[in-house]
Amino acid sequence: MSRHPLTTIQEDEGTVLILDQTKLPQHAVLVRLNTLEAAAEAIRVMRVRGAPLIGATAAYGVALGLQDDAGDEHLEQVLSVLAETRPTAVNLRWALDRMAALLRPLSEDVRVLAAWQEARAIAELDRKANAAIGVHGLPLLQKAVQGGATWERPLNVMTHCNAGWLATVAHGTALAPIYAAHQERLPLHVWVSETRPRNQGLLTEWELRQGGVPHTLIADNAAGLLLMQGRVDCVIVGADRIAANGDTANKVGTYLKALAAQAHGIPFYVAAPLSTIDFSCCDGASIPIEERSSVELGADAAIPVANPAFDITPASLISAIITEHGVFAPGEVAKLKP
Amino acid sequence: MSRHPLTTIQEDEGTVLILDQTKLPQHAVLVRLNTLEAAAEAIRVMRVRGAPLIGATAAYGVALGLQDDAGDEHLEQVLSVLAETRPTAVNLRWALDRMAALLRPLSEDVRVLAAWQEARAIAELDRKANAAIGVHGLPLLQKAVQGGATWERPLNVMTHCNAGWLATVAHGTALAPIYAAHQERLPLHVWVSETRPRNQGLLTEWELRQGGVPHTLIADNAAGLLLMQGRVDCVIVGADRIAANGDTANKVGTYLKALAAQAHGIPFYVAAPLSTIDFSCCDGASIPIEERSSVELGADAAIPVANPAFDITPASLISAIITEHGVFAPGEVAKLKP
Repeated sequence: MSRHPLTTIQEDEGTVLILDQTKLPQHAVLVRLNTLEAAAEAIRVMRVRGAPLIGATAAYGVALGLQDDAGDEHLEQVLSVLAETRPTAVNLRWALDRMAALLRPLSEDVRVLAAWQEARAIAELDRKANAAIGVHGLPLLQKAVQGGATWERPLNVMTHCNAGWLATVAHGTALAPIYAAHQERLPLHVWVSETRPRNQGLLTEWELRQGGVPHTLIADNAAGLLLMQGRVDCVIVGADRIAANGDTANKVGTYLKALAAQAHGIPFYVAAPLSTIDFSCCDGASIPIEERSSVELGADAAIPVANPAFDITPASLISAIITEHGVFAPGEVAKLKP
Repeated sequence: MSRHPLTTIQEDEGTVLILDQTKLPQHAVLVRLNTLEAAAEAIRVMRVRGAPLIGATAAYGVALGLQDDAGDEHLEQVLSVLAETRPTAVNLRWALDRMAALLRPLSEDVRVLAAWQEARAIAELDRKANAAIGVHGLPLLQKAVQGGATWERPLNVMTHCNAGWLATVAHGTALAPIYAAHQERLPLHVWVSETRPRNQGLLTEWELRQGGVPHTLIADNAAGLLLMQGRVDCVIVGADRIAANGDTANKVGTYLKALAAQAHGIPFYVAAPLSTIDFSCCDGASIPIEERSSVELGADAAIPVANPAFDITPASLISAIITEHGVFAPGEVAKLKP
């Protein structure tokens, strides 16, 4: 399948090709999704991951699911199967709500075509939103080093998990401003956390290597020391769900980095499209936290394991939220409600 | 070698048997140390690890090193080789200083015998100190649950890395009060962090399983969420070096747990014998942080890696330091100087 460019998700003759992220960074393998079940499985086992990409994949999953049966009852089944794949990322629900709102009133005979068009629109929206996040986030990075970054003293940005192009349809969220800065030749260096237990930091490492962005891999545990030693100028992460008050669910371990950033007066930014904001969710305590399989820790089956996949960073620890509409204080996001 | 009980270190007919911790938890293998080089290698590659056990192993390493040549010049070489094995744990220097102070004034012909006796005394001192830490730490655990712990609502203790009997000659430091509480039938449960990159949490998991202490393994990243959710009543860790002002170097990742404990008003205890206090070191910034091989992260050799093995927890985040002489505020440890 080498004729296809390396993107996270793309249409291909009535099917959907995804880059199987469970095989990365060792192998870049495209997988063809033909059915609802294949799309749901890809989300569940994290062949696709990252809140925006989960949303886009779910939208395409609806289109795939309707191909053989676009009736009312089956539409509801399709929406329900996809909604249950993962609980925390709200982009999933956002995309499904959007698909449902469009498709429910339509007659069966036009639903399949409309579903493909809407999935395409959702994907395109994500691409544009993330490009805009890059534009809005760039000035924050440019001002993070007093006196300006040089190659002897580059801007040191810390991130967590993978919120790059692999987590989205294109550009990434947290990495979008980093790529924008790199394109502007701003001297920068990125601290990449392993992100146990799923090691999505290795995806970020792979992405940044492909993009020629200088970076260093660290154990998640090392983040506090680096901040204490003054080796981090700002922290930027993505989000899986932002509550109306600005509290943010993101990959587990984010909260610890936010605490350490605050302890050392370092700005902590969240970058996410509007589709990640859950205006119906009043605060972080209301966000469901996905508990994933103990197998992810790689330990013997006899060992008792707890494996929450996300944590909550309170709005008070977030310097700003970077969206496609600009940069906002966490307390201001409620006013972005469409 | 099954005739030997499972202990971290023991004498055996003029040699030293250690439990090879690089093989745990899969295999409990005893390794015989016959030479200085074997002892130094065991410390360097972490067949023995944990500050108190490193100290005891270094003391025995001096005895092994003097067996063929107990001359002045060779004694200094032996001390120097061992001193350079690992930089952060001050128990290593403490044990070597003690050996040097005893052996330097002695004549060559009695040095070997004296070295074995002193190594034995250092090991015995560690055993007794840690038993006392258990006694002094127990009341802190007993009072950590308001209204008392029950099996329906056990005391939830979080630890980091391994500061159990595997890290010492016996009993452990951070785990000594936990074992004491378990023996008193206090209902308790321990959160065990993986402790990347070397996964010493799996040693703690193994120890607690052997001891029948209820516990759950988590990714290091999960600590903040558990504290936020009120599922942790206290945090207790060991130490590799405590500065005179109470700042504490311990396994990397400790500082993040201390920040999260403070954010949620949960007590954070450090448990360590006096041999871990560096009275000549004024504060945490003066403690050297060991940078270990990038190989420990298991990443491709082409990937740039930073791998600091320890971090510094400021005294301000430490509720109390539990020693063999009792429980002290971090600011009080300077007065323990012998």
